[in-house]
This record gives sequence, C-alpha cells and structure tokens, in this order.
Amino acid sequence: MSLDATIKEIRPLDRASESAAQRRIDSLTKPEGSLGKLEELAKRVAVVQDRVPPRLGRKLLFIFAADHGITSEHVSAYPKDVTAQMTYNFLSGGAAINVLARHHDVETEVVDVGVDHEFIAAPGLRDCKVRRGTANFARGPAMTRAEALRSVEWGIQLAHEAAATNLFLLGAGEMGIGNTTSASAIVCAMTDAAPPDIVGRGSGIDDETLARKITVVENGLRINSPDSNDPLDVLAKLGGLEIGAITGVILGATALRLPMVLDGFISGAAALLAYRFSLHVRDILFASHLSAEKGHRPVLDKLLLDPVLDLGMRLGEGTGACLAMGLIEASVKLSREMATFSSAGVKAKLT
Amino acid sequence: MSLDATIKEIRPLDRASESAAQRRIDSLTKPEGSLGKLEELAKRVAVVQDRVPPRLGRKLLFIFAADHGITSEHVSAYPKDVTAQMTYNFLSGGAAINVLARHHDVETEVVDVGVDHEFIAAPGLRDCKVRRGTANFARGPAMTRAEALRSVEWGIQLAHEAAATNLFLLGAGEMGIGNTTSASAIVCAMTDAAPPDIVGRGSGIDDETLARKITVVENGLRINSPDSNDPLDVLAKLGGLEIGAITGVILGATALRLPMVLDGFISGAAALLAYRFSLHVRDILFASHLSAEKGHRPVLDKLLLDPVLDLGMRLGEGTGACLAMGLIEASVKLSREMATFSSAGVKAKLT
Repeated sequence: MSLDATIKEIRPLDRASESAAQRRIDSLTKPEGSLGKLEELAKRVAVVQDRVPPRLGRKLLFIFAADHGITSEHVSAYPKDVTAQMTYNFLSGGAAINVLARHHDVETEVVDVGVDHEFIAAPGLRDCKVRRGTANFARGPAMTRAEALRSVEWGIQLAHEAAATNLFLLGAGEMGIGNTTSASAIVCAMTDAAPPDIVGRGSGIDDETLARKITVVENGLRINSPDSNDPLDVLAKLGGLEIGAITGVILGATALRLPMVLDGFISGAAALLAYRFSLHVRDILFASHLSAEKGHRPVLDKLLLDPVLDLGMRLGEGTGACLAMGLIEASVKLSREMATFSSAGVKAKLT
Repeated sequence: MSLDATIKEIRPLDRASESAAQRRIDSLTKPEGSLGKLEELAKRVAVVQDRVPPRLGRKLLFIFAADHGITSEHVSAYPKDVTAQMTYNFLSGGAAINVLARHHDVETEVVDVGVDHEFIAAPGLRDCKVRRGTANFARGPAMTRAEALRSVEWGIQLAHEAAATNLFLLGAGEMGIGNTTSASAIVCAMTDAAPPDIVGRGSGIDDETLARKITVVENGLRINSPDSNDPLDVLAKLGGLEIGAITGVILGATALRLPMVLDGFISGAAALLAYRFSLHVRDILFASHLSAEKGHRPVLDKLLLDPVLDLGMRLGEGTGACLAMGLIEASVKLSREMATFSSAGVKAKLT
C-alpha cells in the first residue's frame, strides 16, 4: 500500500472501550490502581484493539539493517563492516536481541533495507534493499526522495503482512553503524533542538569523536536545509533507510490499529517523522524504555510518550522494545486471567 | 537450621569472580555497557554464585500469608477476612501473582504462616502456621519472642528446602490485611524515620484512615519501645508473622549464597530486620521495583539497593519480585547465550 493511501486510511481511535477496560481492571482481585503502569498498558491495548479484555497473539519484531555514508566522517566507534557482520549475527541467533526475543517468545525478522553488502538468501532474512547504504549527508542528501519513499513503503508492506496472522504486538529495532548520527540530525530537524543538546555517544565514542559528530550534524543540517513540514524531505536528506522503514511500519500499524512498541533513540527519530505524517501515530505507539542516549528524552517529550523501562540501555536492535513487549503481554494477561472479586469470593473494599 | 547457626554460617562474598564476569560481558557482541542495568544484574548473580557465566535454574517465589491484630484499629481499606480469601485465590490461580508467575515460569508456594483461618490441606499450600494472626500491636506486643523466632526459622527452613533442587532465584511476596501498618512501624523503628514520613495508603485508604494509621503506628512504637539493635524484639513487638518468615528466607538465602529478589514495602521491612542480623544480606538481595507506597524509597536507601523497575505498583504478593525475576533471568541468558566478538567474527571497537 502506498504512503498516501496509508495516511488516508488512518482514523482517530474510538475511545468508547476505555471506560469498559477500566471497569474490567477495577473488577479484578487487587486494590484499584495497585498494578500501576501495567493497568495503563492493558487499557491502552484494549483501546487500540477496541476489545475488552484485549486479546493476545503473536509478537513480531523487525530488525532493520542499513548502512550510512556518514560513517566516512569517522563518527562511530565501530567500523562500517559491523553492520553486515551483525546482520549475520542476528541470523545465527547470537546477538542480544536474539536472546531477549527467545526469552519473551518474540518472533524476529531481519530486514536488509540497505546494507552495503550482498547477502545470500537465508531463512529469517528479508531482502528489501533500496540501495547499498546512504550517501554522506554531511556533503549532500543521503538519498533521493524516491528512495526514501521506497524505504517507508517497505515498512508499510511489512506491517500489512504481519497483521495478516493473529498479530498482537509489533516492534521494530535496527542495526546500522552511523545511524545515531542520522537520527540526531532528524531529531534536531523535527524538534528545533540544537545538535549539542541531542547528539550523544552512540555506541561509545570519545570526546574528540563526539565533538566531530556534533559538527557533522550541524553541517548536514546547514547543507541540506531539510523542510520539517515535509518528513519525506527530512528522511531523504538526512537518512537512513532503516529509519524510513520504521517510519513506514509505524504508519502501517496506525492504519491497521496494531499496538506498536518503539525501541530507543533511532526508532524514536522514525516516530517523529511518522508523527509529522499523522498525529494519530501516538495513539498506537508504546515507548518501551528511556535510552541512555542523550537525545532520547527530548524525543519522548515531543511524542508525549512515557517510557515503561529505564535500565540505562543504549544498544538498539529492538532490545528495549522486546523487554517492553514482555511487560505489555503480562499486562494483558493480568486483564484476561485474573479472578474478579465476585468470581473469587473476595470481599470488596470497605466503603 | 536455627537462626543463630544461620547467622554464623554467613560469610562475606568472594569478589574474585567480579572481574571475570565483567570480562565475559565485555566480550559479547554489543558496545561496552550498552545493556545498562542488565549487565549489572548478570554480574551480581555471577558474584553471588561465584560462577562465570552464571547458571540458570528454577525460580521459586514464596507467598507468605498472615493476619494482623492491628486491623481492629481500622487501618485498612479491606476487611480482615480478605487475607484468607486471597489465600484461596492464590491456590486457585486467580491472583495477579499467579498470572505473572505463569508468565515468567516462576514456581510459587503459598505459605500460611499465621492466617486466622483453618485451611484444609491443599496442593500448593504449606502449613507453617505459628499462630492465628498477631495481636494488636497498638495495645501491646504483636507476638512473643519465641513466636517471632519461629516465623524466622520457618523462612530459613524453606530457603534450605528450596536450595536443594537446582535453584536459580528465590523471591518472596506476602498477603496480610494490615501488614503495611506493621511494616511501617518496623521501618520507623529501624531507620529512626517519623511515622508521617513512612506511613502510606497501603491498599488505598482515605485521608481520615491515613491519619488514624499514623497515630496507630506512633502509639505502637511508644507503647512497645522496640530495641532497634535487637531485630527479633522489633519483630515480636510490631509483627507480623509473614515479615518474620521473609526475614528468615533472606538470612537463609544469604547463608546459602542464593540470589534473592525482594518485592516491595513489606519485604523491604523484612530486609531491614535481616540487615540488622547481618550486613551481608545486601550482597545477595536484588530490589525488584520501587513501590508507590510512601515508605519504600527510605527502605531502599537504607539498604543501598537500586530498584530495577519503577512501574508505580503497590500490590505486594510478590508481583514486583516476579517481574524482576524475569529481567534477572534475561540478564543471565544474555551473559550465557550471546556470541562474542571473536565467535561471531564481528570487528571490535576502533581504537
């Protein structure tokens, strides 16, 4: 489905199920409100699904991999080849996200949306390559508008495919050496924040590299002058392909009314782009965690989303999203499986 | 095993495994430190087990139920019978802790350490009843010193039984209408805090009941004048039996070097008692979450423990402990199952 058609498809949520969901939660054998954020999570899922109690099903997380031309500015702690190497690591099950996905019974699909490497077809690897990495956005646009659109529409298509079979929760993570630089530039463009307030240490750069990274983002913004009212322009000029794909998944999930779990800083930048396409994206988005990456808090503030976890993580891959998917599933199970005061014969609160 | 013998058994941890655990974590395919608190959790488990990477195994949570004579002062939002009714709810699997325990594959054992009700023997229910509820501590001691000791030694025995079969993590939760009042009094006694700074709304009391609850705690402390250097005296005078049992589990786990996960405010009060018996308890204790109950933060500060989760929960039963057990298990799986840079052929950080 095209981007335009997807945006036209998006409808505001019907909030009628909210009070029914609250009544259900308050009937369960526990003091009112005593499950804290878990009650909020279950209620939000009920509203997105328009169903009380909400239903369970498959949990699916896309791991989008892509390369970034900006790495030639020496902004990362790791060499560019690590994007392809880690993609192989995802496929063989040895990355952090694989361990956490097994722990929480989350299915993963690794999606090559722009790695600068030719993979041989492999089970679990989806070929959605738009181009072999972006261009260096410090010298000009990261990609063409048509390429940016293609990355977004891949995300939309994947959301549609996922929705076809008993889906409960959608998540997205990423791998792309250099992508905190692209994401920082996008966040600056979309929030008017200054690069020194957003650019962080990514995978762990030293002070000198951090100073260079800030300059690179400043240069990229000046040279490209992206139009923040045109999120496709921002994406095309600043990159990257995995950010575009996540933007597409978010928009697809919004049109399809699927609860969608963000990961950290990179998926937050994608959410800012999606939010500019449609304010309704935040109805279905769940902020999994607060990343240790400096610019993440301003992203969540802009989206008015409250993170579930704060574990000082800054890995990406979907690791934060995966942990939060486990908690959201737990919240729905509570709403579905707990006894009520009347079914359990437990006396209610004294009045 | 007796309390005295258990305390004599406790040895300081050998921290030699700490640097080996850190090296293991740093060899995994992720930027150093990027898994945040999950790295700390895995490292602490490795040190407690003295094993790198740490091993997995059964996760077991005791749910201790007991009644409180203090309920005759009208300090709770629920009638006293709810302790027994909720115990039945635990046995039939309809409580929040049952749902979360199934979600995280945590075994539960319901332990009657002092409910004012005669249960018929049932699978999953352990009879360790010391007496049918405590006395009203606003009028005199909650129980005798011998009864307090018996509740602690039940906990020690249960820790030993649990340790016998492939145990990985131990947890404890509780159910006892009125027990935030006992716990508040204990916390005041053990931290020198004033009751208005500790006493909270428990299961959800109104302003009038809160004011009464503060007065009741003040009276209980004045009338009993517990000796904070003698934790058994504090327990006997302020109650309750489930708090004593949790204290015993903590001490047993410390002697046995088992990682033990605290729940919220009530188990925090038990940890303060255990900490006065032996400073080494905090080596094996994990603070699962920050409860919404007012007095919990001062408890964790006193124990120098950092909570893993902050979800605004205030239910007890072991619900916070159970969620954290899932995260601690995930952290150990990461340490065990992730590929290393060399095994995965991923290039290391640029130097």
